Amino acid sequence: MSLVTVGTVAFDTIETPYGKAERVIGGAATYISLAASYFTKDINLVSVVGDDFPDAELKYLRKRGVNLEGLDIKEGEKSFFWAGRYHDNMNSRDTLTTELNVLADFNPKLPVGYRDAKYLMLGNLTPEIQMKVVKQMTKKPKLIALDTMNFWMDVAMPSLKKVLKKVDLLTINDEEARQLSGEYSLVKAAKVIHKMGPEVLVIKKGEHGALLFMEGKMFFAPAMPLAEVFDPTGAGDTFAGGFMGFLASTSSLNFENFKRAMIYGSAMASFCVEEFGITRLKTLNKAQINKRLKEFQKLAAFRL
Amino acid sequence: MSLVTVGTVAFDTIETPYGKAERVIGGAATYISLAASYFTKDINLVSVVGDDFPDAELKYLRKRGVNLEGLDIKEGEKSFFWAGRYHDNMNSRDTLTTELNVLADFNPKLPVGYRDAKYLMLGNLTPEIQMKVVKQMTKKPKLIALDTMNFWMDVAMPSLKKVLKKVDLLTINDEEARQLSGEYSLVKAAKVIHKMGPEVLVIKKGEHGALLFMEGKMFFAPAMPLAEVFDPTGAGDTFAGGFMGFLASTSSLNFENFKRAMIYGSAMASFCVEEFGITRLKTLNKAQINKRLKEFQKLAAFRL
Repeated sequence: MSLVTVGTVAFDTIETPYGKAERVIGGAATYISLAASYFTKDINLVSVVGDDFPDAELKYLRKRGVNLEGLDIKEGEKSFFWAGRYHDNMNSRDTLTTELNVLADFNPKLPVGYRDAKYLMLGNLTPEIQMKVVKQMTKKPKLIALDTMNFWMDVAMPSLKKVLKKVDLLTINDEEARQLSGEYSLVKAAKVIHKMGPEVLVIKKGEHGALLFMEGKMFFAPAMPLAEVFDPTGAGDTFAGGFMGFLASTSSLNFENFKRAMIYGSAMASFCVEEFGITRLKTLNKAQINKRLKEFQKLAAFRL
Repeated sequence: MSLVTVGTVAFDTIETPYGKAERVIGGAATYISLAASYFTKDINLVSVVGDDFPDAELKYLRKRGVNLEGLDIKEGEKSFFWAGRYHDNMNSRDTLTTELNVLADFNPKLPVGYRDAKYLMLGNLTPEIQMKVVKQMTKKPKLIALDTMNFWMDVAMPSLKKVLKKVDLLTINDEEARQLSGEYSLVKAAKVIHKMGPEVLVIKKGEHGALLFMEGKMFFAPAMPLAEVFDPTGAGDTFAGGFMGFLASTSSLNFENFKRAMIYGSAMASFCVEEFGITRLKTLNKAQINKRLKEFQKLAAFRL
């Protein structure tokens, strides 16, 4: 079913202990759309870039089934650019540069063909922009998911709370769940956050897996322990893309299907970190994904 | 089958954001033996206390099926005492006091009846003492498990490496696995540690669950997300006790059974933290344990 993905399409310069990748393609909407494209075909991207963004990359996204009608290409302007350096443990990073460029006055306009999409994934952006997108949907989607970060809790909490009332699913990390709810226990945090709007909460814990809270039930998806993590950039967005892409390819939003979506998201994220940027997401195939999904099953399955 | 448990039997003063417990009963061997006692009956404790240790507590351990023939009670001396304060997040703590007392010159002597035990759990102590116990076993146990900590890696690495050659299973936390192996990736760390001796490695990650590495395979046991964690003291030892107690109650040491042991250990640890010290471990019953085990299954189970 149709999926609208909103977020940045950008250049990233990434330094990790394994090396440096200069001005590679990144951005939340890129990772989300690419990951989703392995499961569903009707993907509709909403974003903005400058005229410095390579045609070949846009062509590649289109080839993967991503509709770019909602991508605003600003003549004479530059694309969003982020540079960061990961610490030795890969769990923390310093932002070296953030150049908003076209993002500074991004005012998303949804093409008419997007407005009745069944699934909407709002990647990490200002809550105001996320709200503008929600308001342009002419039909309430089956599922609106929103990703955000601590920065928006610090500088735009009232707007964030407004848009949270409109969404069905929130993805954040454990520290953000604690900040948003004021509760240290994630079980208690989930209860507070459900009351803010999202009936489904996904708490991403990076190398420690992810938790799903829904209908008073919990599910834990482990992260795959890997011998090498080359670059964690985009892992959270790739998780969201795999998650939403899988859901959009099915017709059910029951708990069992959300659990599967957690594993699909985790599997895609485990690929993402194996190479710099979107490199690994470009070389994937269905057989590799199915093999990884089975590895997740082996990792987690037991009989009492 | 028979299980020998070695470790401290002690007094703890514990401060957490929920309150303070003064001079309550603690110690690795106490937690291990109590947790194991819910699964197997032939438990043989090796430790040392002073004459200040309450008779009623020893009587309680005996009532739970713990043989105290190997507990050295030193007349005129004082039991090991530890005081610590947990930080708000419960993930880190400061040690306020450590009084070794009887532990300073602890020289374990295994009663003859212990020396052919099938299972041996060496709780966290100096590697030299752990080695002394191993050497007193007249028959190679089916399984020797060892718990240790970063402190012994800092001050007694050569002795630790010697005793590791004698053990089948090592339990440590993720930071300790990294320190011991010199590898950040836990997958790589496991390979290095297997070469040091232990064919089975359990990496405990506290609220983030635990990983089992064995026969080139991996298994992940989640931690149960809890609304309240009152006191994390003894959770790792309780995990080990549940793990070894379950294994000792079965006849198989295959991967499937080790996976079960991971869940039994995790379930017991999830109870331990619900109240101060050993309080919760004293009030448990089989029905509660079986209910919790099923909750773990619900937490982790999915179908692709």
